[in-house]
Amino acid sequence: MEQKLIFTNLVGTAIDDLVSSMGNPHTVVISDVNTSNFVMPYLKNDSKVVANSTEIVMKAGDSNKSLDELTIIWKKLISAGATRSSVIINIGGGVVSDIGGFAASTFKRGMKFINVPTTLLGAVDASVGGKTGINFNGFKNQLGTFSEPEAAIISTCYLNTLPQQELLSGYAEMLKHGLLENDEIFGKLLSYSLVYPLFDSERLLPMLEDSVMVKQKVVLSDPTEKGFRKVLNFGHTIGHAFESFAMAHQSPIAHGYAVAWGLIGELVLSHMLLDFPSEKLHKFAQYVKTNYGAFAISCDDYPSLIEAMRQDKKNESVDKINFTLLHNVGEPEINQTATPEQIGAALDIYRDLMGLA
Amino acid sequence: MEQKLIFTNLVGTAIDDLVSSMGNPHTVVISDVNTSNFVMPYLKNDSKVVANSTEIVMKAGDSNKSLDELTIIWKKLISAGATRSSVIINIGGGVVSDIGGFAASTFKRGMKFINVPTTLLGAVDASVGGKTGINFNGFKNQLGTFSEPEAAIISTCYLNTLPQQELLSGYAEMLKHGLLENDEIFGKLLSYSLVYPLFDSERLLPMLEDSVMVKQKVVLSDPTEKGFRKVLNFGHTIGHAFESFAMAHQSPIAHGYAVAWGLIGELVLSHMLLDFPSEKLHKFAQYVKTNYGAFAISCDDYPSLIEAMRQDKKNESVDKINFTLLHNVGEPEINQTATPEQIGAALDIYRDLMGLA
Repeated sequence: MEQKLIFTNLVGTAIDDLVSSMGNPHTVVISDVNTSNFVMPYLKNDSKVVANSTEIVMKAGDSNKSLDELTIIWKKLISAGATRSSVIINIGGGVVSDIGGFAASTFKRGMKFINVPTTLLGAVDASVGGKTGINFNGFKNQLGTFSEPEAAIISTCYLNTLPQQELLSGYAEMLKHGLLENDEIFGKLLSYSLVYPLFDSERLLPMLEDSVMVKQKVVLSDPTEKGFRKVLNFGHTIGHAFESFAMAHQSPIAHGYAVAWGLIGELVLSHMLLDFPSEKLHKFAQYVKTNYGAFAISCDDYPSLIEAMRQDKKNESVDKINFTLLHNVGEPEINQTATPEQIGAALDIYRDLMGLA
Repeated sequence: MEQKLIFTNLVGTAIDDLVSSMGNPHTVVISDVNTSNFVMPYLKNDSKVVANSTEIVMKAGDSNKSLDELTIIWKKLISAGATRSSVIINIGGGVVSDIGGFAASTFKRGMKFINVPTTLLGAVDASVGGKTGINFNGFKNQLGTFSEPEAAIISTCYLNTLPQQELLSGYAEMLKHGLLENDEIFGKLLSYSLVYPLFDSERLLPMLEDSVMVKQKVVLSDPTEKGFRKVLNFGHTIGHAFESFAMAHQSPIAHGYAVAWGLIGELVLSHMLLDFPSEKLHKFAQYVKTNYGAFAISCDDYPSLIEAMRQDKKNESVDKINFTLLHNVGEPEINQTATPEQIGAALDIYRDLMGLA
């Protein structure tokens, strides 16, 4: 079930070519308020298909990945005269592709859809894996389907329309993929400058392609999340704990930042338990510190952080927490465990690396 | 994608065996008020699985195949602690299996489900084909998915808990399948007595099995409704027109009754255009008249009936209406057309056969 991934900064042309290859069906664009303001003017200029499509503009943000907003989209699909043969083009970040993909997979028992991610996180994370969905009743992604888009058109040309925080959030997932894959990709990532808004978007595109292909390979090897896909959780056990902790202390942090810091914590654990090379750990920590700053914790926070890690994964044992860890760059190992004492020691080293100790 | 069909009147045992073969997952039953009152007491007695499942009871009737009712079901699945590994057991008619299947296919991106139809129409029609869905914004089955149940457990033992009209409605679809398949099945159907409530449910079970297998065969030969599945529309072009006409005149008729009368109309057309044998047409019309009575129309009604037929199918030409017709029992032909004059002549003969002329 390999989906079509098109990497290009000639997005308008790519959309027109793709829709033409599908026999020029009736099309409907789903975007959000931000994309509609900052990206759609360019795309309407570059793509006849986009210019001639009905545009459904949703409210922006994860809190609008809701049943209310989905209901509005369904109604607007009816008003737009969408049929089962129409094609939806989702233009936006992960929220748009999640809810737009869910709308497409349920309208008249399923229409085709195309994803055009306009955020780095959307490109690297949401465009592969076939997950669609909405939040419901206070739970994230509670409702949804597994439905692959007909294709994803992946670019870097719209990234400078977004706040720098968005770019860094997505880049954290790319760093994770680099660590999971090999030293070459990892090295390129650490030598790339994220200085904003002057970063080199053309140079970023092939790096993004490498990164998406890492995820694609993992997902294809384990489409139904039975085992190996867990490698994609690397950095996320500690990262989610940081995120929950920050939320509980009324100073929420972006998911990608939490992942960047979580990757350091889990690389420390990898060093302690699987001999991950110390020199690569130091280089990585330095890169994250320079670009993301440091997430401040003290040793008094360890018990609540460790409790959050325990809740995040349904751990079978109360004594040990489950992690994906690395022997080296490109050598992940799922189902590793660490004790609270080991995690505490790792957080000590994290604070030391971040200059917090 | 052939689904498991289990024909038995030992329904409780079949559910327990099936759930056991699936590794005894957590189960949730979805039923409606009617099933809950009239069928569940038996099933709770006969099935440990059903007795131990949380039961979600929805309001009965097609008007409750709605987003509001689906939202309640999704919330109750959360309260029941349902996970992606839980299994939903839909116990009821087509409304329950449609909405329950849709809930299952979208909750946490998809759970397994089992259908236990308790109406004849549900058994013969809704248990094969993988269609799930709800009505939305005034349109029937506007939202939904194609999702096959893990299995359907098909029985006749609960049919006497229903009004006779329900039985006759489902039987009309069986008559259609008999006409599409062969003289043996067709002949058995015409020699079976529907006198209620003394009808022979054990004798009906193998006939129901034959009938479901006819539909299964058609659906498997054309899973995405590209062409041959249109044979299942036989009787429905005129049937839907009768249904709409009755609705517009404030005296709605049951869908199955409309199909029974529509089958006569389309057999007349088959006789006129494809030489369907006159003797079989007369035998069939007599059976329908005895069991369903006659739907009264006059020649003044023809224009509005023909207009309804034109709307029902997106006919390419304004001059001709599309039908599935039969050369003989077991010899259907899709994409046949008839002119308004030919349809008028067929309706004359219908009225004659029904004693209305």
